[in-house]
Amino acid sequence: MSAVSAYRGKEDIRTVAMIGCGLIGGMWAAYFLHCGLDVRAWDPAPDGERQLAGFVDSGLHDLEAVGSSSRPRGRLIWCSSIEEAVAGADYVQENAPEKVPLKQSLLAGIDAALPADVVIGSSTSSFPASLLQAQCGSPERVIVAHPFNPPHLVPLVELVGGERGAPVAIDAAYGFFESIGKVPVRIAREAVGHLANRMSAALWREAVNIVAEGIASVEDVDRAIRHGPGLRWAVEGPHMLYHLGGGEGGLEAYLEHLGPAQEARWATLGTPLLDAETKRKLIEGMRAEVAGRSMSELKWRRDRLLIGILRLLADDEAAK
Amino acid sequence: MSAVSAYRGKEDIRTVAMIGCGLIGGMWAAYFLHCGLDVRAWDPAPDGERQLAGFVDSGLHDLEAVGSSSRPRGRLIWCSSIEEAVAGADYVQENAPEKVPLKQSLLAGIDAALPADVVIGSSTSSFPASLLQAQCGSPERVIVAHPFNPPHLVPLVELVGGERGAPVAIDAAYGFFESIGKVPVRIAREAVGHLANRMSAALWREAVNIVAEGIASVEDVDRAIRHGPGLRWAVEGPHMLYHLGGGEGGLEAYLEHLGPAQEARWATLGTPLLDAETKRKLIEGMRAEVAGRSMSELKWRRDRLLIGILRLLADDEAAK
Repeated sequence: MSAVSAYRGKEDIRTVAMIGCGLIGGMWAAYFLHCGLDVRAWDPAPDGERQLAGFVDSGLHDLEAVGSSSRPRGRLIWCSSIEEAVAGADYVQENAPEKVPLKQSLLAGIDAALPADVVIGSSTSSFPASLLQAQCGSPERVIVAHPFNPPHLVPLVELVGGERGAPVAIDAAYGFFESIGKVPVRIAREAVGHLANRMSAALWREAVNIVAEGIASVEDVDRAIRHGPGLRWAVEGPHMLYHLGGGEGGLEAYLEHLGPAQEARWATLGTPLLDAETKRKLIEGMRAEVAGRSMSELKWRRDRLLIGILRLLADDEAAK
Repeated sequence: MSAVSAYRGKEDIRTVAMIGCGLIGGMWAAYFLHCGLDVRAWDPAPDGERQLAGFVDSGLHDLEAVGSSSRPRGRLIWCSSIEEAVAGADYVQENAPEKVPLKQSLLAGIDAALPADVVIGSSTSSFPASLLQAQCGSPERVIVAHPFNPPHLVPLVELVGGERGAPVAIDAAYGFFESIGKVPVRIAREAVGHLANRMSAALWREAVNIVAEGIASVEDVDRAIRHGPGLRWAVEGPHMLYHLGGGEGGLEAYLEHLGPAQEARWATLGTPLLDAETKRKLIEGMRAEVAGRSMSELKWRRDRLLIGILRLLADDEAAK
């Protein structure tokens, strides 16, 4: 094992290999193509190529609605093996199903086939980088690069190197994702669920508790968030929200005056389990909220509104 | 005590009394005026009238940016006593500082001065309705009507009657708030922080934990939310987010396949305390995130983007 001093980054990456082209890999592929990168794709599914074409079409359509790219669209190349896909790749994104042995063996194979200065990112939402690196000859260039669903629209990419990932490999990935309009975030210590899914889980735990305890319905919990704090979380994070809740003194004043009240509130939060009765309440409540709308109708609404918000935020940024 | 069979609601409410006109009361006043309601306002502060005028100007300016009202703007009447303010009011909103004895005594005074069919809503973010009703002769019409900051822009209004609040009083308030474009949510059981602040507290607790444990910085936590799940929470609540995370099978499939993984993730969430070291990390991290921007600059950015998102959501609703 020999770490390299610099990895291929934003200046050098022209071709990305996608290993695993389900929903996540497919939407990643659309994003990279939209940014002018060539994509070499592989997936073991019998109809993988056709399925990928569908994801890419749909993703590119959404991305054109967000805004046109300054670079001509990249080429999509379907490959019949992992070796063929990674040949000539300057960056690799792995999106296999969430199974440790499968990912470990795939990543080891990818690692063995690649030049030493190519970073390999895993889309895993569950596993620490250290676990995924276990069978790799060059673990220092195998990192977590986790998107938030839907990956072609949501800008966040969480980067984790774990104990063995090289800081320069994270640097290279950070610069690359930033250069193509994503928002990379560097995670200093491995934690289950990285950042966004930990916080999402914390919010949902209390949302489940509220339903389990009969405080409010599934639908009313969802309405309270999307017509309430959810609007603010789209424009500022939770720490900034409390900073602006502290008056002129900001977060410091908030902690001073309302810190004890917040600790008292934390002590009342629930720790529900997903037992049969709670699951029943959640499923029945969701049925009422869905009110007959199809899954594709719900996703279409979500993506249409996400596109609108992304355009708004981009316009606001551009007007600075 | 004699409960009435119906309270003044959307058809009857022309004049609102605002008791307490700080930031919350002032922004409530702007909203009611924008919707064509007359507002009779009282606040004990020596410069209360001038301060209110400032809040109302600023709030009306924001509200015009969201969209013009179909009704001519209401009249703002400054009153020199509570009795004068509530005289002729069809609905009362109380926004005194968060102190139980103060609110109890104010609410008892308002209650004693009003006809029996006028609902009294408290903006309290901390206290259960039952506690606030304690000294009132007609506790059944004293309810919590809690907005989320900033109250003129965020549509959510949480309604809680507690054990003594009359369901018909909640009905009347629900219909009234809905008729003026707010999103009322009915809370079946009293809970500290109602709904939105409980869930906001749950999210923030893990956000604090992530900083305390050195997993990521204050700024990166905020970036992860606003460029990640925060975008989704502006268009769908946490339950719907997991419904769309379950594939074609929705929430039921999610609970079946990923419920155990979610429970395992919940078990790893932190329970930090706001001790001196954690406060120091939060304050230093916030200083880095703020990067010299003033409080008014941060609020201006927040409100500008909130206005944009509200317009977008309203246009989308109108296009249906």
